[in-house]
Amino acid sequence: MNKKLSILVSNDDGIFSDGLAALVAELQPIADVTIVAPDSQQSAVGHAITVHRPLRVREMKKDGKFFGYAVDGTPADCVKLAIRNLMKTKPDLVISGINHGSNTAISVIYSGTVSAATEGTILGIPSFAMSLTTFEANADFSYAAKFAQRLALKVLEHGLASGTMLNVNVPAVPESEIKGVVITRQGKSVWNDEFEARRDPGNKQYFWLKGELVELDEEEDIDQRAILNNKVSITPIQFDLTNYAMIERLRTWSLSI
Amino acid sequence: MNKKLSILVSNDDGIFSDGLAALVAELQPIADVTIVAPDSQQSAVGHAITVHRPLRVREMKKDGKFFGYAVDGTPADCVKLAIRNLMKTKPDLVISGINHGSNTAISVIYSGTVSAATEGTILGIPSFAMSLTTFEANADFSYAAKFAQRLALKVLEHGLASGTMLNVNVPAVPESEIKGVVITRQGKSVWNDEFEARRDPGNKQYFWLKGELVELDEEEDIDQRAILNNKVSITPIQFDLTNYAMIERLRTWSLSI
Repeated sequence: MNKKLSILVSNDDGIFSDGLAALVAELQPIADVTIVAPDSQQSAVGHAITVHRPLRVREMKKDGKFFGYAVDGTPADCVKLAIRNLMKTKPDLVISGINHGSNTAISVIYSGTVSAATEGTILGIPSFAMSLTTFEANADFSYAAKFAQRLALKVLEHGLASGTMLNVNVPAVPESEIKGVVITRQGKSVWNDEFEARRDPGNKQYFWLKGELVELDEEEDIDQRAILNNKVSITPIQFDLTNYAMIERLRTWSLSI
Repeated sequence: MNKKLSILVSNDDGIFSDGLAALVAELQPIADVTIVAPDSQQSAVGHAITVHRPLRVREMKKDGKFFGYAVDGTPADCVKLAIRNLMKTKPDLVISGINHGSNTAISVIYSGTVSAATEGTILGIPSFAMSLTTFEANADFSYAAKFAQRLALKVLEHGLASGTMLNVNVPAVPESEIKGVVITRQGKSVWNDEFEARRDPGNKQYFWLKGELVELDEEEDIDQRAILNNKVSITPIQFDLTNYAMIERLRTWSLSI
């Protein structure tokens, strides 16, 4: 008899988010699912870990039964704490999401959803991040969750390159309108963001970030373009940030002391 | 007459840290220096930006004179706010640091110091991050600051590849013991970290992260090895995280819907 799969699920929207619930419901038939997720919304935290204060863990119930562990930290904290301390044995897979909103192009480096999967990868576990590309309140996560289940089995079958996770974005359209799956590159689109200067009731100034992604990419194999074409985007993401092409160029600078 | 250089300085140790002061003192003879930095310690925040609450900015004095802007946000927030709102014209250069402690190997992705320089790069400004590889309380930042001044002029002379910043680590030894400068790759060393489970005075459990970097790299052109050899390490870092080598492999998986 095969040992049952063990999957760790985390996210950045918080333990009781709809996207996580939809993902867990699709994974439970194929695996023992352990949930370790932030106790509050943690968007745009990047790959933050908590070092200057301790973390608290609470066991959370849902419908009267144990559901998972809520941590007062970041997504990366959750995955590290789960694998280092809370789980008796390492999981076979880490899945982060399903995020409510896309994580494409430059947003990848700000994403808490991606960072949870990156932390799983750092700790040697095959990992992927799932995002549904809409901010609508009543988003339907069901197709994205089904796709996550299929991808989980594919990842376990094929394995992933060392130091590499998958960043998956699913278009927010009915399943019948999904046009396919594309292996993509991280886009170069950036935010045209700025801070809106406002005044509080006491007439003191404050600044609030606003902006939108400016589409700079035209190629079909770019994450953001795949979504616009109603295709599921899968980008292999690594945490070796070295620009190897730049190394030789830098060696021609006379920098010796 | 040449227009005077304009340099934006930020960090993750906070606006009144010794490393920032040493850096600014070396830059002021060659440039107009604008300081926009966190109002408190922000280590290990990764590339976080603040989206769910507003930011406050305070003008800070030092020795009775205006010194810089303190922001109640992350290093990336500081650089974004500086370039988008606080500065009348874009700076010629962004320098982050000098961090009190190294930012090598896997620490690069957790580093607030690196994230400030990355944000400068995203906004189209040549940027680099400076770290002194010691946690000693009375660290001497003077050689690292002098090196930063020289590197600033080199970066302005040569320019940097698009989407690429420099991550610089300086050994914490007297200048006479510095053995040279090496262009390096990001190391693969990881932390053997774990959470220490403790009990608070009310007997409730809490977890505190501890650990050390495990040296996995032997090659001389790795960031962490350069430091051990008393050499200044300069790593070109990019924010395109795509693992290009993995793309073809993923295309062989049958993932079509």
